[in-house]
Amino acid sequence: MEKIQIKKYMEIGKENKPILICGLPGIGNIGRLAADYIIDKFNMEKVCDIYSTYLPAQVFVSSESVVSLPKNSLYFKKLSKTRSILIFTGDFQGTTTEGQYEISETVLKLATSMGVKEVFTLGGYGVGKILESPRIIGAVSDLKMKKKLEAKGIIFSENEPGGGIIGSAGLILGMAGEFFGMDAACLMGETPGFFTDPKGSIELIKALSKIIKFSIKLEDLEERARSIEQITDKMHMEGQGKEQKEDLGYFV
Amino acid sequence: MEKIQIKKYMEIGKENKPILICGLPGIGNIGRLAADYIIDKFNMEKVCDIYSTYLPAQVFVSSESVVSLPKNSLYFKKLSKTRSILIFTGDFQGTTTEGQYEISETVLKLATSMGVKEVFTLGGYGVGKILESPRIIGAVSDLKMKKKLEAKGIIFSENEPGGGIIGSAGLILGMAGEFFGMDAACLMGETPGFFTDPKGSIELIKALSKIIKFSIKLEDLEERARSIEQITDKMHMEGQGKEQKEDLGYFV
Amino acid sequence: MEKIQIKKYMEIGKENKPILICGLPGIGNIGRLAADYIIDKFNMEKVCDIYSTYLPAQVFVSSESVVSLPKNSLYFKKLSKTRSILIFTGDFQGTTTEGQYEISETVLKLATSMGVKEVFTLGGYGVGKILESPRIIGAVSDLKMKKKLEAKGIIFSENEPGGGIIGSAGLILGMAGEFFGMDAACLMGETPGFFTDPKGSIELIKALSKIIKFSIKLEDLEERARSIEQITDKMHMEGQGKEQKEDLGYFV
Amino acid sequence: MEKIQIKKYMEIGKENKPILICGLPGIGNIGRLAADYIIDKFNMEKVCDIYSTYLPAQVFVSSESVVSLPKNSLYFKKLSKTRSILIFTGDFQGTTTEGQYEISETVLKLATSMGVKEVFTLGGYGVGKILESPRIIGAVSDLKMKKKLEAKGIIFSENEPGGGIIGSAGLILGMAGEFFGMDAACLMGETPGFFTDPKGSIELIKALSKIIKFSIKLEDLEERARSIEQITDKMHMEGQGKEQKEDLGYFV
Repeated sequence: MEKIQIKKYMEIGKENKPILICGLPGIGNIGRLAADYIIDKFNMEKVCDIYSTYLPAQVFVSSESVVSLPKNSLYFKKLSKTRSILIFTGDFQGTTTEGQYEISETVLKLATSMGVKEVFTLGGYGVGKILESPRIIGAVSDLKMKKKLEAKGIIFSENEPGGGIIGSAGLILGMAGEFFGMDAACLMGETPGFFTDPKGSIELIKALSKIIKFSIKLEDLEERARSIEQITDKMHMEGQGKEQKEDLGYFV
Repeated sequence: MEKIQIKKYMEIGKENKPILICGLPGIGNIGRLAADYIIDKFNMEKVCDIYSTYLPAQVFVSSESVVSLPKNSLYFKKLSKTRSILIFTGDFQGTTTEGQYEISETVLKLATSMGVKEVFTLGGYGVGKILESPRIIGAVSDLKMKKKLEAKGIIFSENEPGGGIIGSAGLILGMAGEFFGMDAACLMGETPGFFTDPKGSIELIKALSKIIKFSIKLEDLEERARSIEQITDKMHMEGQGKEQKEDLGYFV
Repeated sequence: MEKIQIKKYMEIGKENKPILICGLPGIGNIGRLAADYIIDKFNMEKVCDIYSTYLPAQVFVSSESVVSLPKNSLYFKKLSKTRSILIFTGDFQGTTTEGQYEISETVLKLATSMGVKEVFTLGGYGVGKILESPRIIGAVSDLKMKKKLEAKGIIFSENEPGGGIIGSAGLILGMAGEFFGMDAACLMGETPGFFTDPKGSIELIKALSKIIKFSIKLEDLEERARSIEQITDKMHMEGQGKEQKEDLGYFV
Repeated sequence: MEKIQIKKYMEIGKENKPILICGLPGIGNIGRLAADYIIDKFNMEKVCDIYSTYLPAQVFVSSESVVSLPKNSLYFKKLSKTRSILIFTGDFQGTTTEGQYEISETVLKLATSMGVKEVFTLGGYGVGKILESPRIIGAVSDLKMKKKLEAKGIIFSENEPGGGIIGSAGLILGMAGEFFGMDAACLMGETPGFFTDPKGSIELIKALSKIIKFSIKLEDLEERARSIEQITDKMHMEGQGKEQKEDLGYFV
């Protein structure tokens, strides 16, 4: 079978020139959570599903006991006459190095066919502790993009992130710039890294809404962030500090 | 060499519309044991062997010292004028993610060519303890199948299995529904999970016999289940509890 | 590049019907050591080298500081007007499951093109201790071969080896029988398993010389076996028993 | 996508017959550091970039926050009318055995197309301690090359390196000789192995400059070597010896 299979549900004409936003599972899961939230709130339409032998060999089971294969998907929304967005999200990142490259190239080829010229990948920047006001750190395909994002409050810091950007958030950015001639950036939200972190996702969405100019109600995410804050605060008060927080694991 | 090689021994016409049952090695080995038992009791005919570079690089040695390569196989039986079954079983599941996908697609392509419209995969649902009456939990390709199975006593439970279904029992189900348009379900028998469990296999066969409508003598499996019960009971009486039972490992 | 590359140095006509003997590195290294010894003593001619991306990415450095890529090789010798042998040996087995299958198929295709009808693979059967008289245990492609080998003193034992035969000694045997219609057997010499064991290799060569009918001087191997015996005896006398022997590691 | 993608920036005619020098990351990082230093000091021109799905799925982030995909690259410099060099270096070695072979073949094919007849790969020979005067140990494709290098002070030692040469420094050498008919050698500088070691790189460059006949100022590397020496000396004086030095990790 083909290592990557695309099921297409609608055609997106090049004239839309949508901006591509990529949020897959990763550190603190904040990129994916932000992507899913925008898709939900904007009631975005599904453009295609991407199945792949590079994704884990399993199925998910819904609360109705109906199964679904792991996949990555692309969603579309026309925000106004001149602005539209595509969001790329999914259940997993590719499980091998080759899979990471192949899936990244696939989404960028699809994006090219739909007229995409600009890409933002979303990621988490693990800082190992809970911050009052997490920053959004940026990395870019070129200095023009950097200037543009600095004007919108994105922070560029000489030694952050130190070790490069691992996985799809880095690779899609790199390939978009070097192979596809797109303007691209990665927005990395600071996040504790040891649980799914709606607070980080909120900051990512706020940054995106300034850059792309859209408005979105954040109440549901804020509600989720408060729930988690109550749990972590309680743990803190019980004097069990950091070790306990790590026990939270990844929960949504 | 081809990564998957098929040795065909007979042709199955599409008019048979057989129901496909898949039981490969897995948790408690109950799916494979159930599949092997039905093949044996119904004296099913072998349709084909599937060899693959995705299966381990080794051979088995029989009690006669004759070796055989690892393989997966398909067996056929006409149960009545209008009902027939295909059983897919084998020595191993694919050893890589890609192998899992490729072998699952291969069996579903073969099944399609033989007129299969309905698939049941068999799996174990590890509960970590010995149960008096293990349940059969279901997961399905769609709600129509769920209704059908509920009527036959299969249990659908909102949070079970929590983490999805890993491996071929999940993947064949998912691909059957999403890629091949088949009605499909996975039947998961509760099983301790730390030894080959004939009791779980018996429950799977009982469930299948209600769904597909066939009758089969279960005495030999019941005999095996009793043998294991005697061992585990004895261990229990010796007051060594759960830890000791885990030492049973996988035995047949 | 091709995953397997063959450098051929001579043509072997089918009329030779050579017997193929396979000895690659493995348990106690006795198969490879036996193969190398026969190649050396019979001054066999090299038929071809097999290079592969399935072999480790490194080179060996000779005592002259000249490097060589890892490879597997095939050697030929006409023993008499009617009997000739091919020996397959090499530096490594394939490093992946796929590599094991591909390299095994490659040598069997080459063998077919040279008229091979009969194959003996050599392996070690790790018993974890030093034996006075190691046995040769057999496993075969069919019962006809078993009878033939029993007549030559090869031992067939119902539960040995228990877990099948892992790696090329098993796979080449299995594929020779099931895919290439050859008569095939694996000869497994009992060996401690924790050092290169010339004693096991001697027994393998004695067995082969009875089966294929050739005579070969074993003095050099016997000399090596004695050296190792002196070391292990000394360790035994110092009362450090089995644990220490395991520290010998693999030495040649 | 292609597993290896080449972006070419200039053509090198065969009449240049350049000497190829390969320095990728490895033990003590001395091969890569030497390669980078020569490229910098000679202001070499980039011939091509090699991107590959065999390289890690990530991007690097510059101090300006601009990202770049991992790659290997080839640089060219005409040293005189009759002598020119190509340097092959990069961010990583291939992450799999197959990747190592494929990338090595790619650079040697490129080299062939540019008229290369002679290859020197650079590597580190880990000795686990800081040496006053690290030696350069050689390994060669043939004895003619050995003689040539002995005349230039390269050391050939019967048991060094004992375990062969792992990775691209070995593989490119082996393939250059056995597959491409080139004269080739590996120059291995002795290095502690637990930090990036400019001292070892200096010795490699000195050896190359004798063999290929070029002169290059080593001041900047010597400065870096002194800095590291000060750190390691200080640690030594504090009496924390070898264990602490290992904590240095890989730093540049």
